[in-house]
Amino acid sequence: MINEKLLRPNSIVVVGASNNIAKPGGKIIKNLLDNHFAGDLFAINPNESKIQGIPAFPDVAELPEVDLAILAIPAKYCLQTITDLAEQNNTKAFIIISAGFGETNEAGKELEQQIVKVVEEHDACLIGPNCIGVMTPWHASVFTTPIPELTSEGCDFISGSGATAVFIMESGIPKGLRFASVFSVGNSAQTGVEDVLPYLDEHYVDGESPRVKLLYIENINDPDKLLYHATSLIKKGCKIAAIKAGSSSAGSRAASSHTGALTSSDAAVEALFRKAGIVRCYGREELTTVASVFMCKELQGEKLAIITHAGGPGVMLTDALEDGGLKIPEIADSEAKTALLQKLFPGSSVENPIDFLATGTAEQLGHIIDACENDFDVDGMAVIFGSPGLFPIGDVYDVLSEKMKVCKKPIYPILPSIINVKDDVAHFLSRGNVNFPDEVLLGRALTKVMNTPQPVAEREDSQGIDPEAVKAVIAGTKNGYQPPEVIHKLFDLAGIPRVKEMVAKSESEAVLAAMNIGFPVVMKVVGPVHKTEVGGVILNVRNVTQVRKEFHHLFQIEGTEGILIAQMAAGTELFLGATYEETFGHVVLCGMGGIYVEVMKDVASGLAPLTHSEARSMVTSLKSYKILKGFRKQAGVNIDKYLDIIVRLSWLLRFATEIKEIDINPLLGNEQEIMAVDARIRIEH
Amino acid sequence: MINEKLLRPNSIVVVGASNNIAKPGGKIIKNLLDNHFAGDLFAINPNESKIQGIPAFPDVAELPEVDLAILAIPAKYCLQTITDLAEQNNTKAFIIISAGFGETNEAGKELEQQIVKVVEEHDACLIGPNCIGVMTPWHASVFTTPIPELTSEGCDFISGSGATAVFIMESGIPKGLRFASVFSVGNSAQTGVEDVLPYLDEHYVDGESPRVKLLYIENINDPDKLLYHATSLIKKGCKIAAIKAGSSSAGSRAASSHTGALTSSDAAVEALFRKAGIVRCYGREELTTVASVFMCKELQGEKLAIITHAGGPGVMLTDALEDGGLKIPEIADSEAKTALLQKLFPGSSVENPIDFLATGTAEQLGHIIDACENDFDVDGMAVIFGSPGLFPIGDVYDVLSEKMKVCKKPIYPILPSIINVKDDVAHFLSRGNVNFPDEVLLGRALTKVMNTPQPVAEREDSQGIDPEAVKAVIAGTKNGYQPPEVIHKLFDLAGIPRVKEMVAKSESEAVLAAMNIGFPVVMKVVGPVHKTEVGGVILNVRNVTQVRKEFHHLFQIEGTEGILIAQMAAGTELFLGATYEETFGHVVLCGMGGIYVEVMKDVASGLAPLTHSEARSMVTSLKSYKILKGFRKQAGVNIDKYLDIIVRLSWLLRFATEIKEIDINPLLGNEQEIMAVDARIRIEH
Repeated sequence: MINEKLLRPNSIVVVGASNNIAKPGGKIIKNLLDNHFAGDLFAINPNESKIQGIPAFPDVAELPEVDLAILAIPAKYCLQTITDLAEQNNTKAFIIISAGFGETNEAGKELEQQIVKVVEEHDACLIGPNCIGVMTPWHASVFTTPIPELTSEGCDFISGSGATAVFIMESGIPKGLRFASVFSVGNSAQTGVEDVLPYLDEHYVDGESPRVKLLYIENINDPDKLLYHATSLIKKGCKIAAIKAGSSSAGSRAASSHTGALTSSDAAVEALFRKAGIVRCYGREELTTVASVFMCKELQGEKLAIITHAGGPGVMLTDALEDGGLKIPEIADSEAKTALLQKLFPGSSVENPIDFLATGTAEQLGHIIDACENDFDVDGMAVIFGSPGLFPIGDVYDVLSEKMKVCKKPIYPILPSIINVKDDVAHFLSRGNVNFPDEVLLGRALTKVMNTPQPVAEREDSQGIDPEAVKAVIAGTKNGYQPPEVIHKLFDLAGIPRVKEMVAKSESEAVLAAMNIGFPVVMKVVGPVHKTEVGGVILNVRNVTQVRKEFHHLFQIEGTEGILIAQMAAGTELFLGATYEETFGHVVLCGMGGIYVEVMKDVASGLAPLTHSEARSMVTSLKSYKILKGFRKQAGVNIDKYLDIIVRLSWLLRFATEIKEIDINPLLGNEQEIMAVDARIRIEH
Repeated sequence: MINEKLLRPNSIVVVGASNNIAKPGGKIIKNLLDNHFAGDLFAINPNESKIQGIPAFPDVAELPEVDLAILAIPAKYCLQTITDLAEQNNTKAFIIISAGFGETNEAGKELEQQIVKVVEEHDACLIGPNCIGVMTPWHASVFTTPIPELTSEGCDFISGSGATAVFIMESGIPKGLRFASVFSVGNSAQTGVEDVLPYLDEHYVDGESPRVKLLYIENINDPDKLLYHATSLIKKGCKIAAIKAGSSSAGSRAASSHTGALTSSDAAVEALFRKAGIVRCYGREELTTVASVFMCKELQGEKLAIITHAGGPGVMLTDALEDGGLKIPEIADSEAKTALLQKLFPGSSVENPIDFLATGTAEQLGHIIDACENDFDVDGMAVIFGSPGLFPIGDVYDVLSEKMKVCKKPIYPILPSIINVKDDVAHFLSRGNVNFPDEVLLGRALTKVMNTPQPVAEREDSQGIDPEAVKAVIAGTKNGYQPPEVIHKLFDLAGIPRVKEMVAKSESEAVLAAMNIGFPVVMKVVGPVHKTEVGGVILNVRNVTQVRKEFHHLFQIEGTEGILIAQMAAGTELFLGATYEETFGHVVLCGMGGIYVEVMKDVASGLAPLTHSEARSMVTSLKSYKILKGFRKQAGVNIDKYLDIIVRLSWLLRFATEIKEIDINPLLGNEQEIMAVDARIRIEH
């Protein structure tokens, strides 16, 4: 597990160090030296006394105590080296760069586990094997380039793939993205992506620690840990964006073949990310764009001003933002608006987008930003300023940079002329700013951030559901699909309303049952399998006389053992179901029933247990929410009761992990009540 | 209109030429010289005899004949200068860079029109005013940078915005995108975006002319011209991608304020692009990525192999492609597969993605590509190869470049290490290749291209609808919503089936009508406005006795003038409607009725007149298509009849542009037939 020696070592040894910087063991030394590692640096190399100018030892025996060891030697030598370092040199942190472990074969996996055992016996930390290394503001212990600017103002970045980490940095650096740390976890022998988060969470100091975390994940081995610490960090003010590769079935197969691990279902990942408040990204460009959005001040509302010196990009950005639910409101007439217009060239427009023309100046940009900051009813600004290449525009970018520092509202800079004013853009970035070269990619990233729900504010209790009683019912079941009695017991324990039904063996019992339930009722034969085919279902029985008549009629059907009298439910068909995902727990799905779920794929997912606010966020995210609320002449359903049932089901499942699959279909709802009419539960002990 | 003198001038004069290259009149000269314009170059400048080394004249009088004039002088001098050049110097092509025309005020617009008049009197061509200029392989007559590589192997690019054109080139050049021509049409005084296409279409020579066209459009002034020539070019083998900015209502307001023109409804634009087969893009990055896809060989199927030396990007690309409907099939076991695996390092995978590990070599890449080209059942390849920065990888890119030339299947190169192996990537691009630095952006662009329908193969005739008869009916109507008689006549002329209905004034007429129509029927009072409220609608009347009874009953309702007897239709509710869009014609919308259209927004659009194959493409693009085909126990509708009605309606509208709005709602369908039950038509003469 991550420790201080890994992050801020006073001394580092590179085992397998080389003078050849085209080799990992050479490049790591070079990177450490180039990036001014301030502690003691040692090398292990059997043939040299100096490697790139630093002292080299033939083996571990002559080495002094050292905090962090980086191994770039064949896999077969790693166990002995680590044992020696841990025992003789008090080394508490290890990075194994070398491949040839668990990713290769079973013997490699075994070797990995032996190494982990030694590492844990010495209370040490292991990163890798099969990784590019670790970077923090104290040391750049990687064999790759590029090395980004490492500062606590940058992002913490944890990656399940080394090459992908490199490519993500290559995508982010040209945008000005800076990093605080980069962890490439490789095979995750001891430390996986979700094992780095607890350290970052527990050592988080508001105002000092990096605020933005980026994750690239191929498997989630410990969803609970990821959920807990991601949620905790976000509640402390952090922002987290993550790629979980393998969302399609072929992608999942690919991820599995790449890492050798079983992959999680995408619905489970989606539900976990929503619950934690993680912004889910699907590619490198998107991840680094979302990270750049995080680097700007936080947008506190939905209204943006677009400030541009060129019409086209302003229009495209407007489209992208409105498409994602943000607003580009017209600027209301006011003295401030009139005053601003007078400071701009004739032909400028102070509607929104605010267009100050191709000839617009740095000074004018300052006036516009001030008006947006102080006078106009907007929550943030996007500034588009490029160049046709006639002259430098550093003065404009200086004003922009200044304003980005002093304004309370966020300012998103779109500097598209990465060729024409390359140097001006570079200077702008060198001041610690990010750049969004493409306005539409910014628009999509920003709306994605704004549309990601916040993590649940507070946990709720278990809604009065008795876990022991649930467990007792489950204990009495067999594997497989459950009979109605079990379903009834579980629903009653969970407080999930269901249609009333009783079985009557005699005419008088039938009459009593019907009166108890209330008319109209449904009468069904008990016994025959294909009830409908034998004429064994009578709908809409309205009075006692009819009950008596139908009772005798139904009892004449062969095989009938009794008559089920059930409440006649009517209303809108809803769906509620869940599946159990190994390690994740239950993923609850809700939506309108029938074709809405099956054809229109209009479902929302959440991870059990759910709070009422999560359930509300699920239900309101449905396209069919409009229908649930009541559309045109058609009455809606009691949304609050639906939410309550969703929450109750999620708690029932929390106490019954043996339920692998449940479908309440249909759940019938009207404006007053919602009731389960039929359900299917599969249990595996 | 575009002419040869604009594209391949033998001589060019820059009016307002300058030695100051920070001024447009200076930069144009510099660009022409830097890019080796091979003809005669002259300058007009009142104070100098040489400008940047080329001969300068004080005015037009002393200038020899010249093909193309570029004006970078104040707006007020342009008319006289153009008149002089046209009359005295036989100049046949003009580019006005200067602003201060129609975009400024009415006087500017007037001046523009006077200039156009002169230009047209001399059968000449005018680009601009208020533009950056024109580039072709013969001359780079723009005042902006960057100047891309200009070659007939590149794209033709026509832009409604000069600054946006610059930014699009800045987005495309780093990807290796080359250009054949760039037209910045500015205010489009004579020549708009859609006026350039006819020249490109009419002069298209297969195998010689540029194959890819890119458009950036803010208004479509002449949709018919755009549709006609885009369709024609695509049928000749061209590929067209376009941004139409202003898709959201705020974006449309922004575009309108930018250009001063009314914008088109987005549904009309969408329908036009689909009909023409234009790939619609929403941002610069997307446009240049789609353009790069076009630069590769054409993908002839849906199966791709992903070849990678790093797992992560392979997984993300798989997700993106599968998400867009392409397939990353597992490679079937075969001798070729076994043979290939033996040529790779242990641990490599020849599933799909094909992963040849971080240590994979150029030679191995060659073997893999050969196997995909010759042996494996795939239609194309995506090759992902970056670098951790240890050593150059030019040998790999050389193999890739060679294979891209010789393979028949398209190969999409993803070279993510734009920092680590910058020089190798630059060399790869210098060989005429494109690069996709982000695999997910490639995945989305490629699936967008594959999901864009082909233009209609052949026009259909008017389905036997008599235009004169339609026009006669329309001529007899008043403005506004039409009475049932008009709707019936139009539907009958168009052959759109409708429920049978007749008005009866007496009991015997009612009985006759009902027998004629066939039972069951609906009976409705004629006269009272709110029929349902007064109890004036009787559904499901099953026999003659009931008709007689209900006739008398209904006639007692106050205000009743007659009884409408109508066929009792049943089935699935469909929707079919259209609106007339100024200049575009009718946009036809179809989908399932009620909530499918209104809540789920599941509608498809097309531009009238439609062919059966277009109607089929519309209907099959609906999410609810599964329901229309029949879902579970629910019967479907007769899709062929639905298509036929869609086509017939589109032809009716083609002959009746006075119909501004039509809704057939509902159109009831079952497995046998589909009939209009109710409709609303608004006519404006």
